[in-house]
This record gives sequence, C-alpha cells and structure tokens, in this order.
Amino acid sequence: MIRAAIVGGTGYTGVELVRLLLRHPDVELALITSRAEEGRRIDTLFPNLVGFTDLTFTAPRTEELAGMDVVFFATPHNVAMAQVPALLDLGVRVIDLSADFRIRDVAVWEAWYGEPHACPDQIARAVYGLPERHRAKLRDAQLVACPGCYPTAVQLGFSPLLAAGLVDPGSLIANAASGVSGAGRQAKVDNLLSEVADSMKAYGVAGHRHLPEIEQGLQDVAGEPVSLTFVPHLAPMIRGIHATLYGCLNENGLAADLQAVFEDYFANEPFVDVLPAGSFPQTRSVRGSNRCQIAVTVPQGRGTVVVTVAEDNLVKGAAGQAVQCMNLVFGLDETLGLDAPGLLP
Amino acid sequence: MIRAAIVGGTGYTGVELVRLLLRHPDVELALITSRAEEGRRIDTLFPNLVGFTDLTFTAPRTEELAGMDVVFFATPHNVAMAQVPALLDLGVRVIDLSADFRIRDVAVWEAWYGEPHACPDQIARAVYGLPERHRAKLRDAQLVACPGCYPTAVQLGFSPLLAAGLVDPGSLIANAASGVSGAGRQAKVDNLLSEVADSMKAYGVAGHRHLPEIEQGLQDVAGEPVSLTFVPHLAPMIRGIHATLYGCLNENGLAADLQAVFEDYFANEPFVDVLPAGSFPQTRSVRGSNRCQIAVTVPQGRGTVVVTVAEDNLVKGAAGQAVQCMNLVFGLDETLGLDAPGLLP
Amino acid sequence: MIRAAIVGGTGYTGVELVRLLLRHPDVELALITSRAEEGRRIDTLFPNLVGFTDLTFTAPRTEELAGMDVVFFATPHNVAMAQVPALLDLGVRVIDLSADFRIRDVAVWEAWYGEPHACPDQIARAVYGLPERHRAKLRDAQLVACPGCYPTAVQLGFSPLLAAGLVDPGSLIANAASGVSGAGRQAKVDNLLSEVADSMKAYGVAGHRHLPEIEQGLQDVAGEPVSLTFVPHLAPMIRGIHATLYGCLNENGLAADLQAVFEDYFANEPFVDVLPAGSFPQTRSVRGSNRCQIAVTVPQGRGTVVVTVAEDNLVKGAAGQAVQCMNLVFGLDETLGLDAPGLLP
Amino acid sequence: MIRAAIVGGTGYTGVELVRLLLRHPDVELALITSRAEEGRRIDTLFPNLVGFTDLTFTAPRTEELAGMDVVFFATPHNVAMAQVPALLDLGVRVIDLSADFRIRDVAVWEAWYGEPHACPDQIARAVYGLPERHRAKLRDAQLVACPGCYPTAVQLGFSPLLAAGLVDPGSLIANAASGVSGAGRQAKVDNLLSEVADSMKAYGVAGHRHLPEIEQGLQDVAGEPVSLTFVPHLAPMIRGIHATLYGCLNENGLAADLQAVFEDYFANEPFVDVLPAGSFPQTRSVRGSNRCQIAVTVPQGRGTVVVTVAEDNLVKGAAGQAVQCMNLVFGLDETLGLDAPGLLP
Repeated sequence: MIRAAIVGGTGYTGVELVRLLLRHPDVELALITSRAEEGRRIDTLFPNLVGFTDLTFTAPRTEELAGMDVVFFATPHNVAMAQVPALLDLGVRVIDLSADFRIRDVAVWEAWYGEPHACPDQIARAVYGLPERHRAKLRDAQLVACPGCYPTAVQLGFSPLLAAGLVDPGSLIANAASGVSGAGRQAKVDNLLSEVADSMKAYGVAGHRHLPEIEQGLQDVAGEPVSLTFVPHLAPMIRGIHATLYGCLNENGLAADLQAVFEDYFANEPFVDVLPAGSFPQTRSVRGSNRCQIAVTVPQGRGTVVVTVAEDNLVKGAAGQAVQCMNLVFGLDETLGLDAPGLLP
Repeated sequence: MIRAAIVGGTGYTGVELVRLLLRHPDVELALITSRAEEGRRIDTLFPNLVGFTDLTFTAPRTEELAGMDVVFFATPHNVAMAQVPALLDLGVRVIDLSADFRIRDVAVWEAWYGEPHACPDQIARAVYGLPERHRAKLRDAQLVACPGCYPTAVQLGFSPLLAAGLVDPGSLIANAASGVSGAGRQAKVDNLLSEVADSMKAYGVAGHRHLPEIEQGLQDVAGEPVSLTFVPHLAPMIRGIHATLYGCLNENGLAADLQAVFEDYFANEPFVDVLPAGSFPQTRSVRGSNRCQIAVTVPQGRGTVVVTVAEDNLVKGAAGQAVQCMNLVFGLDETLGLDAPGLLP
Repeated sequence: MIRAAIVGGTGYTGVELVRLLLRHPDVELALITSRAEEGRRIDTLFPNLVGFTDLTFTAPRTEELAGMDVVFFATPHNVAMAQVPALLDLGVRVIDLSADFRIRDVAVWEAWYGEPHACPDQIARAVYGLPERHRAKLRDAQLVACPGCYPTAVQLGFSPLLAAGLVDPGSLIANAASGVSGAGRQAKVDNLLSEVADSMKAYGVAGHRHLPEIEQGLQDVAGEPVSLTFVPHLAPMIRGIHATLYGCLNENGLAADLQAVFEDYFANEPFVDVLPAGSFPQTRSVRGSNRCQIAVTVPQGRGTVVVTVAEDNLVKGAAGQAVQCMNLVFGLDETLGLDAPGLLP
Repeated sequence: MIRAAIVGGTGYTGVELVRLLLRHPDVELALITSRAEEGRRIDTLFPNLVGFTDLTFTAPRTEELAGMDVVFFATPHNVAMAQVPALLDLGVRVIDLSADFRIRDVAVWEAWYGEPHACPDQIARAVYGLPERHRAKLRDAQLVACPGCYPTAVQLGFSPLLAAGLVDPGSLIANAASGVSGAGRQAKVDNLLSEVADSMKAYGVAGHRHLPEIEQGLQDVAGEPVSLTFVPHLAPMIRGIHATLYGCLNENGLAADLQAVFEDYFANEPFVDVLPAGSFPQTRSVRGSNRCQIAVTVPQGRGTVVVTVAEDNLVKGAAGQAVQCMNLVFGLDETLGLDAPGLLP
C-alpha cells in the first residue's frame, strides 16, 4: 500500500482527492493537514465523507510527512514551494496541484505570480503532470507539477492540431467557461450563489495566470512559438470546464480529415474520448469522472476549426489527474481508482 | 458473476442502475432494453457512459430475459406487472423499481393507480425492498418491490419514533422536497429548466401516490393505524430528497433521549447515518451515494419533534437501494458496489 | 416629491429599495449611505443600475439625513436603534427593515438578539409594517418596523384561520424555504454557489430569530397564546420564500369552506392573491413583484389544513413592503411604484 | 392609446411582451391569441400575471386583428408570413418577433429554414428592428422584423469595429451563450432542468439559423463581405445572452483608442451601455431590462480584440426590442415602458 498525505485538505481539490484516494485499492490515505482546521474530523467539514473515514486534520509537520510515500499539495500557490525541497530530500514523492512548479521559466512565473520563487533550482526536477503528453517522464518522477483545470482542457484540445501542424499557431483562441468551484472554497462575495447563479460573465480577460502555462505547453507541442487569446468565463454551475477552441486551418489543415486526426491522436488514451462527428461534449457527461470529451468541427467548411472540450475541473482538471499521475509515478495501472462513470443526471 | 438485465433503461433510474452495476464486482450487466431506443448504443443516449460500455438497447424479449439471474424493472408503473409472472415462473429474480408490487392491498393500489392490477396473486410474493426493515426476508427473495424515493426517506425518518412508541401516530406530517429528476426523463413543459429553476412549489398536495405506500410502511412499524399529511415539493435541483418530518411527542417521547434513540436504532445500518446533535443533513452530502443522513431535534424543547432526512432520490431512493436489495437476495455483502462517497461539491 | 434616503445600501434589500424607489413617481431618492463604500458610485457595485442613477455612497451623517422626509434602514439589526431616536426627534419618518423595532417585549428581543436594546422607550412608537394587519396605524406613522421575510409569509398564511378561530393555535407548524439572498450579501463560505447550489437543507431548527416575531403576530390575530414550530430551509435559488403551513382544524374549521374564508379575508388586499382551488403558488410567479400568492387545501379531507404561500423575500418580504408602508405613511395610493408583474420565466 | 394584439402568446417572448405592454402608458393590450389555449385565462398559464389582467386567449381571427393598431407576432417562424399580408393590407402595423422577414435574400431564407417563403414580395417592406442601426427607417414602418437574440448581441458588439474599419471582416468569431429560455417553452427532453442544469455545451456548431442573419447585418455595417464563425452554447440559466466576440485588429485598429471608439459609437443610445475599461458585463446585470452592456479589451495588447456583450434574450433580445421598435413606429419616446432597472440579485 502506498501511504499518502494531503497537505491543505480544506479546499475543493482536497476533498476531491480524499474521495478518490479513499477508494483507490493501492493507497492508504494516512494524513491530511490544515492549520486552520487542526483537530477537526474531516467528515464534519465535508459531510459526504460521513461513514467513510475517521481522519482528522492535523497541522502540517515535516516529520510526519516524511513517513509518507507520496504527498499531495492541494494548497494555493506559494505554499508547496516552501515545503517541497525538504520532502524531496527525504525521498518523498510530491504531487503538487498548485501552480508552483508548472512554469519552467522562473522569470515568467515570478512576473505572473508577483513574488520571488522560493526554490527556483527545483523547478527543473518537476515533470508536468499531463499524462497524455508526458507519460514516460512521469514514471518514477519525484516531483509532479499538475496542470491547472483550464490548461488541461485547452492543451488536450489543441494538441492534435498543433502536433500535426494543421493550424496557424499565431492566432489561437480559447474561450472557456468554468464552474464556480474553480474559484475555490473561500469566503468571497463574488462567488455567493446570489451573485453568480443564473448569470454568465467573462473575467480575467486582460490576463489570466493560466495563459503562460498554456502557451508553454502548446509551444512544446507545436515546436514553434504560439500566441493564444484566452478568455475565461464563469458559468452558473458547480463543476465543469467547457472550452471552445478556435484556430485558422492552414492548407494541410483544410485538406485533413480532422475527425480521423483526433481519433488517431487519442486512440490509446484511457481518459480522452473523441466524440463521433456531430456530437458535442457537455460538462454533465464527465461530472465526477476523470474523462475528457472532445469534438472537432469546421463550421460551414470554412477555414476556422472549432474544438469543444469538456472535463470536470476538480477531477481531470485537478484531483483525478493527480491520481492518474500518482499511478504512473508508482508504476501502477494508470486507471486505478479512476474507473467510475460520471454522475448523470 | 450474476447476469443482470435492466428493462426500461432510458430513464434516470435506468442510467443510474447502469452506473452502479457497471462497477459492481459480482455483476455482469448483460442486457438493457427499450422499445423506443432499440438498436441505439446506450452511451449515445447517456454520454457519461462513453468509454465504459458497448451495450446497445434491445427490445424486451422474454426468451432473452429468461437467461438472466436477475431482471431490474426501471419502468413506469404498470409495465412490470405484465411481465413479472412469466419471469418468476422461469426462476428469474425480479427487482422492480416501479410501484406495481409495493402496496399489499390490491384495492388500494387500484384506487390510487386508476387501473386493475394485472397479477394481484403475485403481490403477496413481493418483499418490500427497504433493507432497514426487511433485511431477513430479502435474502433469497424472488420478487422485490423497491420503495419510492419519498417513502424511503419518510419511513426511515419516522421509524425510530414509531417503533419505540414515542409519537402520536395519528398526526404525522411529512414535508418533503425532491429534485426534478424525480419527475423522470420525459418531455414535459412543467419540468423545463425555465419552468422550475430558481423556484419552489408544492405539488400533489391533495394526494400523492406515495401516501398509501408510506402509511402502509409506517403502520407496520407502529403496529397501529397511522395518519400522515404528506406534502411533496419540487426544489430547483437535479437530485436529492429532503424530508422534514413532524410528530407530536407523547409522554414517553418527551422523556426520551431522542438522539440516543436514533443512534441506537440505526447503529448497525451500513447506509444510514444519524448526524451529531446540532448538525442537519444536506442533500449535497449524499449526491450520488447510497447513504441516508438523518437528524433529530425538538425545537425549543416543546412537544413537536422534527426529523430531517436527506437522500439521493436516484440512489438510496431508487437504483442504489435496488442494488442493495440485489446484494441481499444473492447473499452478497450488502454494501458491494455501493461504497463510493457522494460527490461534493 | 418625497425626499428619501437609504442607510446601509450595500445589501440586497438596499439595492432592491433603490430599484423600486427609482421608479416611484412621488419619490426622489436623494441619498444612500455606506461607510465601507463611501465615494463609490452605486452603479459600479450594482451594475443593474447603470444608466439609471448617478448616486454615490456617502457616509451616514445625521445632518444630511435630517433633510429627508423619510429614511429607510436597510441595515443589519442593531444599527437602526442607535440612530433612529435622533431622526424621530427631527421629524424624519423612519422605515426600518431590520429587526430592531419588530418585537414589542424588550426582554424577548434582548434574549433572541443577545444584546441590550439601545432605545427601548421608542419601541412602543413603532408600527409593525404589515399593511394587511396594520393599515390604519401605518397612516402617518413616524416609525415603521417592517417584518422579516419569513414572518410576512407565515403571518399572512395563518391569519385567515386564526382570525376565524378555525385551527388549534397550540400546534401550528411552518415549514419554510428561502432563497439564498435571504442570507445577505456577505462573504461567507456557507453561501457560496458551490456550497448551496443543487442542494436543500434545514437550518436554525433549534430556534430562529423570526420565531418570536411570528408568534407575537399570530397571537395578536388569534387573541390567545399560540405555539409554532418553525423550520426554515435553504433552497438553491436566488430569491423567494415558500412557506407550507400546517394546522389542526377544530370543529369550526372542519365545517368551514376554507377557500371562501381565504378569499373573503383577502378580498380587498391589493397584494395578496388567493389562488383558485387546486392551484399552488410558486416562488417564480412573484419574482421581483410585491405580491403574495396563497393556496389552502385539506389533504384527503382529514383534519390537517395545509396553506402554501409564495412571496419574493426581497420585495413583499422586505423592500417592496417597505415601499408599501411608505405609501401608507404619506397617504399615497398603496400600490404606487409597486405595480409591476413579476419576471417569468 | 395604441390598441395592441399578440399572436401566439403562450411562449416566453409572448408572456414577456404581456409583462411589458401591461405597464406601457400608451398601449392597451386588447387581444392575445393561441389556438391551443383558446378560452383559457392567461394568468392561469402565467401566474406572474395574477392580479394584473383578465385577458383570455382567443383563436386568431383576422377580423379581430384588423381592429388593432399593431399586431405582435410571438410565434415560431413560418406563422407570421402566412398572416401578415392580409393585416398590412388592412393598414395594421405588424411587429414580427419571428424569423420570417429578417433575411432579405429569399433564397438564403429558404435554404436555412427549409421551406418556401409564403410572401417573398413582402420581405422588402420589412424594416429590420434593430433601432441602433435602423432608427430612422423604423419611424412609421408598416412591418418590422425584429432580430433574434444572438443577432442583437453580436451585431451591437461588432458594429463599432466594423463601422470604423478596425478589424479584418474575414475572420470574425462570435462565441455566445444563451439561457435555456431561448429554446422556448416546448416539451423537449433536451431542455429539462435535469438535462441542462449544472452543465455547459455548445450546439448548432455546424450551422445555426442566426448565422446568415448576423452576417447580413455585419456586412451592412462593414460595407464589404464578412465571414463569421458563430458558436452558440447553452448555459444553465433561465435568461440571458452573453457573447464574447473576437476580431483581428488591422493597423487602424491597433492604433485606435477602442474604449473611446465604443463610447462614441453608443453615446446617444438609450439602451446600450459601454462599461468602464476593466469592467465586464454579466447577464444578471440586465435581467429583465432592455439594456445591453458591452466591454472592449485587447488582451496583452496583442492583435486580437475581445468584445463582451450581455443582454436579456427575452427583453433586448426579443420583447423589449419589439416594444422599442413599436415606440419608434408610432413616434413615441423610444424608452416608454422600458425604463425599469434589471432585477439584481
């Protein structure tokens, strides 16, 4: 059994990790930390866990974390980078769901996050936790930097086109909508039901922190510079990311059978489903599951390709992907503990 | 492996049964029927199943159902009663999620459902599928009549009080609210999002078909006649039943430690959780899980006891309970395939 | 023109008052105060007001408020009681939407609100702002204590029965559900969309501050002591109160034509609609309007009467009622500025 | 008083027209028709109207409609075109909210709507009912073809850029999301709350009937051919259109002060608000109001301009715009009956 800890277990990615790890056949969830909730039973904070666990929040202590095989950081950015080096030195595997190790260029990270990075020398050790791109490197990785929710959807959707050189990489557009759980479990007026229910809005139009992370990933796939216009929206739903991606097809793209390109690209992926032509993904189809559903269309046969992508921001966009990475790190079947269909309706 | 079929798999209880049975370690879901969708892959109707099953709807045929170990009826009332006798004769176990065999008194059934019963002689063979009440009889039962969603919540909530004789059975009140999935997957203006979102209403106040079923069950527990005022409401949510039950405490009730009464009554129940005093159940805590959460309070210490109950109408109120019954019928661990925490948030 | 000010205009009742007063033909909304938002244009906080007003929040100052004809307090409890005496001395009419002057018995108020009352001698001057009960006293009142949202619905629903002596006043039950806006515009995790959407729960079961206010009002109508069990619920919607009321009919009640009793009782009320027998109110029917819809039923003709009531918690349950009271105070047509149908769908 | 009739009053645009016309100071709503609901009081179908009108649905009869000053068609497409010629001959003004007269090129109309047009010779008489574009022509128009909900938002958002020649007209993208009321009040499984709540999806990606209408309008503004990729989405909300528009800025566009361009373009528009730089429209801000809120941004100062637009699909996207057109047709103040702020929260 893999002994696992979760640092920062009071947020939505934390409780989702608990949900998934409790049912993982090869994992023992041994520890969950929170300074604010130290001493409180987790099932009183998250009553979906009543009857499933007796775990109690403890304050994070390196000596206790040192006894783990793997530590998940489900913290806001800038927490993991302070604690990760000590854990890595002790031989503990770290899977970080925050932004601390996602961006390779420290200067870019510091510019977007507005503070110095605490351990810039460790960044190169991190493997970006998108298994569809970095499966081989994830096997036996010591430090995994899990992608954000938007970056997962946008990278998966654009990858087949960029890898095959079918679109102009200089004019990509990603129009994405997230459920409100993506904003976290924090007391903010902006995310009250009375503020966001029955409404849609764009936000972060001038610049969202996921932009450099996405562009870095797309550039790797394209092998050339990429320019993306990324507009996130808040949708009145609890979970889900829906991304609608636009690209200008080049001559190869116009000539290609894009449905086949997508089906081939993801043919062996356990968690990515290319829908039949004419079907479009809905976020409800992946609610609670680790799957990502994708469709590709060229409206009116003109030169703009439209890719639509749906995932659960807390599963394939966070906790599920972290477990998928953990399975790879420890040489397990990649789908272990992640084989449940989504909840519909 | 238990070979299982679902008759009438195009509704919400049908897809929920599929979700649960696909992950059940001892079940092979071999057949799913629908006249209307014959020949269609189920994952095109329910895209949460993409990647999980290749099943295709077939028309229901007795010769095929005859090869099953168990057949679930996830049909509207009056379908199962026409087909069940033949299956029972062939030795197939039947678990009926509809109303056809829930009410023992045929005249009462016929009055509330407005038609003659097709096989009144079979009703006595049916075991009412509320394991917390009829666990022993369910072992090896041939025909199980699963309770409706409201009856499960209301019976579980009142049982500790009636069994111990702590309330006046003549003046019970059940004020319950259901998510819209309880109204089924049928094309009705009344259940459009634009009609029911962001709104609450009572319905069926003058008389709901679940009333005689509930009263029958409560009478069994009480051992005396019971009178219930039952007012169902529609709440703007997809899943969930929330029931608020009111009873007049008698002298024994006023003297009792009701928290202890409830905790003792459900002490050995794998799927019923009595919350600590001061906590109240939320339907979100059991979204997608087979658990039922219950709290008991006596406001201001006056003579009225208030019991609040939450369950998922499609799981503990329908498909999950059916699987729980199936486990008992076949002598399996009662919790097999039902051990996943609910989805929160 | 009546010059009006709103003290505490950053909450939901505040913005609703602005919406109504801006369209009132006889009112000039001259001042809106907020310490926290001093200097901010109100339409940047509430963008539904873009194009309708240039008002800017100011800090509350008695000298400015002194120039008003009427001051509305849309503040949390314990604010108005500190400022009202000075305004009354200056001859300014005060309409308080908070709880400070609703309860006549100071000891009861202090017990439920957990602090001493700042001006107990002024309480007797306050007229309870439920026009259907106190229309005459409201004309020319100096201080109006507007009812809370639950008390309005519960009192209106029970009044016809209690006034005619048709139910046992000792065993009343009010099961009510509120939209989340009733919890106010405050940064609390509990009211995030991700916490309360798609879910139902009871709260305040052990005792809600609206209980003594409701019982006081019901006792006035009944002319004898009343005992109420009041269980509020949170429903996943923005606006709306739905109350389901239960009473034990006495002999007179059993013999009465309750539909006629209700229709007669409210025959001349401009804002209360008794629905035809067989129809039930929905909160969506009164979304944004000052109307209250009511239905009465006796399920199965047994001894329990069920009254269902719907109102908009921010209109008839708060701001609309305050405007209705203002109309009465100043001798205007009671419906002025309140004649818009609700928003459906 | 203008005597008005609504043909086809059982849908959401119908009830919204009723809501607006009942409060219009210069209109008497004299007639509302529906074959299916003939003889039924409208307030039993739409209970938000209880207390506001005694109108009863009648079957549509030309002789009765002939006595009106104006007839609104709130019907699905292909109804108005059969009845309009007779009414025009009788001198009745017609405001058609359906698609029958929106597209000038009959062949295009017939291709997208899949049937022959019933009165192609009348199309040229129709004035396209977007006041911000055709205000002058609307004065005294006999037949008004009101735009659809998406076309209103997309045309208003792109117009300032195209009119000034600041973007490449050959690569426009409109990513729009609609509330479910846009799908109408029809019994369809696809629009049940259980199917669309808490979820997002694209639809009509391969081609939506609003595309040719939008392109026709944009071409008029640009004075040259335009190519638009239009992807509509369904958002889990009742009302609202949110459009996010993308264009490639040309050299003039890169050099322009776009905030000023937008503010100038709409400076005299009573119903279009350009938000301050850094603010973004939310559909909740215009819920129930006739206003359209717009923001313009150039993310990272690169070459792609992003315009976000919010409107209420049933008001500025349908019934409100129809009333605005009626005001112009009859020479009234354009804002008459449309001066209410939206409902927030």
